[in-house]
Amino acid sequence: MSRFLNSRLESLEAYVPGEQPADREYIKLNANESPYPPSPGVVRAVSGCAGRMNLYPDAACRGLKAALAARYNLLPENVMVTAGSDDILNFCFMGFCGRGVAYPAVSYGFYEVFADLHGVERSVIPMGPGLTIEPGRWENLGRTVVIANPNAQTGIALPLADVERIVASNASDLVVVDEAYVDFGAESAAALLGEYENLLVVRTFSKSRSLAGARLGFALGGAELIADLERLKYSTNPYSVSMASLAAGEAALAEDGYYMEKCAVIAAEREKLKSVLGKMGFVSTPSMANFLLSRPPEGLRAEEIFLALRERGILVRYFGGGSLAEYLRISVGSPEQNGALLEALGTVMRGEKV
Amino acid sequence: MSRFLNSRLESLEAYVPGEQPADREYIKLNANESPYPPSPGVVRAVSGCAGRMNLYPDAACRGLKAALAARYNLLPENVMVTAGSDDILNFCFMGFCGRGVAYPAVSYGFYEVFADLHGVERSVIPMGPGLTIEPGRWENLGRTVVIANPNAQTGIALPLADVERIVASNASDLVVVDEAYVDFGAESAAALLGEYENLLVVRTFSKSRSLAGARLGFALGGAELIADLERLKYSTNPYSVSMASLAAGEAALAEDGYYMEKCAVIAAEREKLKSVLGKMGFVSTPSMANFLLSRPPEGLRAEEIFLALRERGILVRYFGGGSLAEYLRISVGSPEQNGALLEALGTVMRGEKV
Repeated sequence: MSRFLNSRLESLEAYVPGEQPADREYIKLNANESPYPPSPGVVRAVSGCAGRMNLYPDAACRGLKAALAARYNLLPENVMVTAGSDDILNFCFMGFCGRGVAYPAVSYGFYEVFADLHGVERSVIPMGPGLTIEPGRWENLGRTVVIANPNAQTGIALPLADVERIVASNASDLVVVDEAYVDFGAESAAALLGEYENLLVVRTFSKSRSLAGARLGFALGGAELIADLERLKYSTNPYSVSMASLAAGEAALAEDGYYMEKCAVIAAEREKLKSVLGKMGFVSTPSMANFLLSRPPEGLRAEEIFLALRERGILVRYFGGGSLAEYLRISVGSPEQNGALLEALGTVMRGEKV
Repeated sequence: MSRFLNSRLESLEAYVPGEQPADREYIKLNANESPYPPSPGVVRAVSGCAGRMNLYPDAACRGLKAALAARYNLLPENVMVTAGSDDILNFCFMGFCGRGVAYPAVSYGFYEVFADLHGVERSVIPMGPGLTIEPGRWENLGRTVVIANPNAQTGIALPLADVERIVASNASDLVVVDEAYVDFGAESAAALLGEYENLLVVRTFSKSRSLAGARLGFALGGAELIADLERLKYSTNPYSVSMASLAAGEAALAEDGYYMEKCAVIAAEREKLKSVLGKMGFVSTPSMANFLLSRPPEGLRAEEIFLALRERGILVRYFGGGSLAEYLRISVGSPEQNGALLEALGTVMRGEKV
């Protein structure tokens, strides 16, 4: 640490993203990326704007906002665009958590980092049986509420009625629903936006729209809330989204059928993978996301499997200690990738050497 | 404003970027963009990665860091990469201004916004004669120092010896030198990094490397300082820079001769433009940047000229009220763009209708 850092930040522990080792080629099932490339129109759009990148992008993101508004039956003033959904979540913790924040004990690890960074008082709500979010624990919390649906790490989705119960019972406070994984089978709270002004839905192009590399997130919410978020964006980094990423986002929405079809393929692959893993003795949460959270059978430690798969060129996510110490988070890949994972897992379980 | 925003942020006034009207084609001389497109290798690199954007970019930006380190004779641990230089400046105000901040009365307007956002106590140092930064006013300030060199809006550059005097005399505090415009003729403080651990040099690909659309900035400094900045990045938005932008940055450095040659062309055009404007009665600061700050001759108001040029399809920057109310900031364009500007200015000064 340098001697110039604010003392308040000395103990800040940053978020640790999924590893990206460069020592060899890996099958990457550790970052919940899509195994499918962007659609042809996206590739054309990105290539097409490369020669104009001497100019600033549109800080107001007008084209992409209009396309998102049309896609989700909202007005452009209900849409905000940022450099990935982390960017919006950061603004939520920076700007809307004056009375503190509540989030689930098992969820996206970044919520804790944001709370620490912005000095927000935390209320970590315990999970119900089976790592579930129990709506009964989430009523009238008297502080900003942040949930992920489907939940990060577990993939478990709340039905829309449960999300509505949480939003309605916390009417005095903002409820942020992080829907990074919603397109793989859950119900979006965007349907509630007309009724509840205390709801903000946060989405990303990284998972279901095959654009993790573009850094593109968006939020859907009431016009005043969106205007507040825009103010924070214009007070930190107005031009956060690159010209190529804006073009990629617009092109992706123009070919949305491609992506929604791939989401259905991934959801079907998820169920197949879960079933085969089950036969191998793994217990997985009922994920509605593009990953499985799976506990190995008795006698096998998650960390050992993680390391053995890594030796075999396959990356899955292991969270170290804590409540997920006995789990692996496995992104659902293409049929070929999933096949390679299962084959490698077989060799690990049979105790074969690499 | 929504009822959810922290009361502390109620009065925050966001930064206002240069306008991007879409009602017609404009000659854009209002945002200090390069008139020259990215080099061929950049266009190839961006196109080449479009089909892989389903994967996350490298959050650690290893390739681009290595290339920057090589270019500036430093180690990768002395380099940080972000989504534009605003991103780094924001981190500086967030993390390193515990004792307050000093910046020039006339400079980049965003410094004030960052200070307000992070609740940093401000000391606004008055300009010397001719809108200069007078080193004598900048010694032993007892707080973080932020200057731009060449200075924003004026384009006036401090010689390296004066920058060193400021850095040396504020040895207990961080001195941030914002060098967005340094490649157009000023001396970089990067030469001082080996001697002063309280120096941070902030740069951007937006101006001299024709990549405003990519959102790519970087900082050069001591390893501990860079590690602190990385911690802030990993606590807000680790994947802020897109895959295409990382590729663009690496490719640009591989063809750096192209860019440095264009910088020389722009510097020569700046002097020509200044000379012709001078004959028309405009008084310009001795800019070493890719823009001129020019005061119209007696009897002509800056705002009127700004509006009249706009009507003629040419955008320059007018800052409204304040100490620059009588100035226009004119980005140096290509010879053709500068010619069009001078021609339009002629019609305005002769009182001709559009």
